[in-house]
Amino acid sequence: MFASLPSPISIALPQHQSRLQGRQFNRKDLLPINSDCIWKIDSGLVRTFTWDESGRIMTLGFWGAGDVVGYPLSYLDPYFIECLTPVTVWQVLPDSSYVKQALWQRVGKSEEFLSIVHQHDVGGRLMHLLIWLADQFGQPIAEGQLLDVHLTHQLLAETAHTTRVTVTRILNQWEREGKLKRSTRSLILLKQDLDASVSTKG
Amino acid sequence: MFASLPSPISIALPQHQSRLQGRQFNRKDLLPINSDCIWKIDSGLVRTFTWDESGRIMTLGFWGAGDVVGYPLSYLDPYFIECLTPVTVWQVLPDSSYVKQALWQRVGKSEEFLSIVHQHDVGGRLMHLLIWLADQFGQPIAEGQLLDVHLTHQLLAETAHTTRVTVTRILNQWEREGKLKRSTRSLILLKQDLDASVSTKG
Repeated sequence: MFASLPSPISIALPQHQSRLQGRQFNRKDLLPINSDCIWKIDSGLVRTFTWDESGRIMTLGFWGAGDVVGYPLSYLDPYFIECLTPVTVWQVLPDSSYVKQALWQRVGKSEEFLSIVHQHDVGGRLMHLLIWLADQFGQPIAEGQLLDVHLTHQLLAETAHTTRVTVTRILNQWEREGKLKRSTRSLILLKQDLDASVSTKG
Repeated sequence: MFASLPSPISIALPQHQSRLQGRQFNRKDLLPINSDCIWKIDSGLVRTFTWDESGRIMTLGFWGAGDVVGYPLSYLDPYFIECLTPVTVWQVLPDSSYVKQALWQRVGKSEEFLSIVHQHDVGGRLMHLLIWLADQFGQPIAEGQLLDVHLTHQLLAETAHTTRVTVTRILNQWEREGKLKRSTRSLILLKQDLDASVSTKG
């Protein structure tokens, strides 16, 4: 498992920055994209993605409370930020001290994410991805680690660069083997499997 | 091709920060790794990498003049920073204003890099990788774009998550097809091929 991440940074927004106000979005909404808009995520989970010439979607990252996302942070086009849950964001100014701390975290998280999608076999990629997601965005329960986010097989395929059919086959197999439990909208990584480890710092 | 990157940021280091001094490293050297050491690259090219449980090396990024690298920027362990050319670096303080600008750039570059290694077929990954490297670290010449860095087939394999044998086979094929020219220590992407495009911003 990865070293634990720093806690989300808390930020007190000055009153006079009236353009900075909390905004709510629903699952499947796309966050507004424009050239001077950086969002700090207050609650919820988003993913960033692009697509290649053939139209295949590629997930670039998953971001939650405390992270910053926005078009100015990427050199890619097309570039999308999709809400995977209900999301609350605040607009932050690029030169705020908050952004520096958040960029710092983002660099580290991007490398973790990259080391996962780099894995050679699709089963390893998918398992490490689920562990990483559950570790960052899930919560411990008696049975294991609950990831209470509706992750479609298509989305997992777009992240682990494989096909939806392969994701379905592997998840079915892991369910039979007692590695995880699923409902439509959540997933539990069962305890025995949380010992699967990724090399980590510290 | 990607949108052009901002020029490397120039930085004037205060005289009183005597711990901040330029250091030279040779090709194949590893930059010193410790928990409070962030390097600003002045010249040369490095890559960051880790490995998985089976010992397979995974390249996490390529960094050149103006970029910052260092153990504090990653959550991964093991974590290495390898010089691919002779390199000059300066140690910078984590709270310097320079680091914020450099982190900003790094976030964007990491996503570009991720969108490359995410590509589905190994040929596409490898070609986009070469174009990206040539674009950032190469120079235009009459025949095309010269990448004057000794990139071994093994290193390319560790980046495009494939095998050395596959890299050799594909590069040989591209050389026969007139897409590139190679010597031991450099590579030229021939003009016709530079039109192969990646979706870009702007």
